[in-house]
Amino acid sequence: MQTRRRQIEDVASTLFSSRGYAATGMRDIAKALDLQGGSLYSHIPSKEAVLAAIVEEAAEAFHAAARPIAERPGPAPERLREMVAAHVRVVTGGRERAKVFLFEWTFLGEERRAAISRSRAAYQGYFERVLAEGVAAGELAAPDPKLAAVLVLSAMNAMAHWYRPDGPLDPDTLAERYADLFLGGLQATHERMP
Amino acid sequence: MQTRRRQIEDVASTLFSSRGYAATGMRDIAKALDLQGGSLYSHIPSKEAVLAAIVEEAAEAFHAAARPIAERPGPAPERLREMVAAHVRVVTGGRERAKVFLFEWTFLGEERRAAISRSRAAYQGYFERVLAEGVAAGELAAPDPKLAAVLVLSAMNAMAHWYRPDGPLDPDTLAERYADLFLGGLQATHERMP
Repeated sequence: MQTRRRQIEDVASTLFSSRGYAATGMRDIAKALDLQGGSLYSHIPSKEAVLAAIVEEAAEAFHAAARPIAERPGPAPERLREMVAAHVRVVTGGRERAKVFLFEWTFLGEERRAAISRSRAAYQGYFERVLAEGVAAGELAAPDPKLAAVLVLSAMNAMAHWYRPDGPLDPDTLAERYADLFLGGLQATHERMP
Repeated sequence: MQTRRRQIEDVASTLFSSRGYAATGMRDIAKALDLQGGSLYSHIPSKEAVLAAIVEEAAEAFHAAARPIAERPGPAPERLREMVAAHVRVVTGGRERAKVFLFEWTFLGEERRAAISRSRAAYQGYFERVLAEGVAAGELAAPDPKLAAVLVLSAMNAMAHWYRPDGPLDPDTLAERYADLFLGGLQATHERMP
C-alpha cells in the first residue's frame, strides 16, 4: 500500500517534471492531493524537502543499479552493456522521478545541491572506471573516458524526455541498441562484437 | 547595436533557461530590463510570443547549420562529422537560447507547438537521411538510423546543460571527439577512420 509520503512524492514528481520545480507551489501539491495546505505541512516541512526526497531516492536507485556491475571483475565491454541496460531501466521505469533527479536537482539548496553533485560525479565515475579498465585491458579504445561517459549518460538521460511505455521499443531493446552504437559505432568497416 | 527586442529575448532566455518558462512572469522580464510592465507590452504582446520568438530563431539557426550539409552529396561519415560540428557550434554558441529551444518549447501554445514539433522532426530527419545514405553506400552500419540520430542529438543537446566556455575543450574539439565516438565506437578491434 502506498504511504502518504509516497503519494506526495509522486504528485510532486508529476508537477516538478511537467512545469518545473520553480513554477510549482506547495499549494499545487496540496490541491492535486485534495489536501488542505496545513495538512500537507504535517507530512513534509517544505517544498525543497520533497524535492530532496525525490532526488535522493532516485540517486540511490541509479547507484544501486550500476555500482555492483562497475565493481565486479569481468570484460569491460560486457559490463558497460549491462550498466547501460541498468541505467535505461531506472530512467524508463520512473520517468517523472528520473526527470526531477536529472533536470530539477539544481533547485536544491546549497548543501543538498553539493551532496547531489558529488553523488552524480561518483555515479559518472563508475562508467569512467569501467571505460578506463577496458582501455587498460586492451578491450576498448577510449582516448577520453570522461567524455565518453558523458556522451552515453546524456543520451540515456534524454530518454526521460522522449520514452513512452507504448512506444515501439521496450527498455531492454533500447538499451541494447544504444550499447551497440556506443561500443561499436557506425563505421561499416568495423569488426562487430560476437 | 542590440535592438530592444533582442535585449528582451536575451533576458527572457536567461530567465526561462534558469528557472523555467512557467516560473517566469512578464514582470520578471520587465524587472530585469528595468522597464515598467506596460512598457514591455509595447514591445511584445505576451510571454508566449517571446518564447515563440526565441524558439523560432533557434530552430532557424539549427536548420541553417545542418541542412546544407545534409543536402549536398559526399561521403556520409564526412557529412555526419560536419553536421555534428555545426550542431555543437549552435548549442555552445548560445546555450541559454538553445536550452529554451530544446527544453522549454513544450510550453508553447498548441499551434506553435505543433509547428515546432514538425520543425524538430524535419531537423532530426537530416541526420536520419545522411545515416540512411551512408548505409545505402556501404559506408555505415546503422540498423536503426532513427535511433542513431536520436542518440547523437541527445548527447549533443545535453551540452546546453554542461558546456562552459572556460572549460578545457573548445566546441570544435568536443564535436570531433563526439563524432569519433559516434562513428567509430569504443571497440579496440575497430579499424579507425584515416
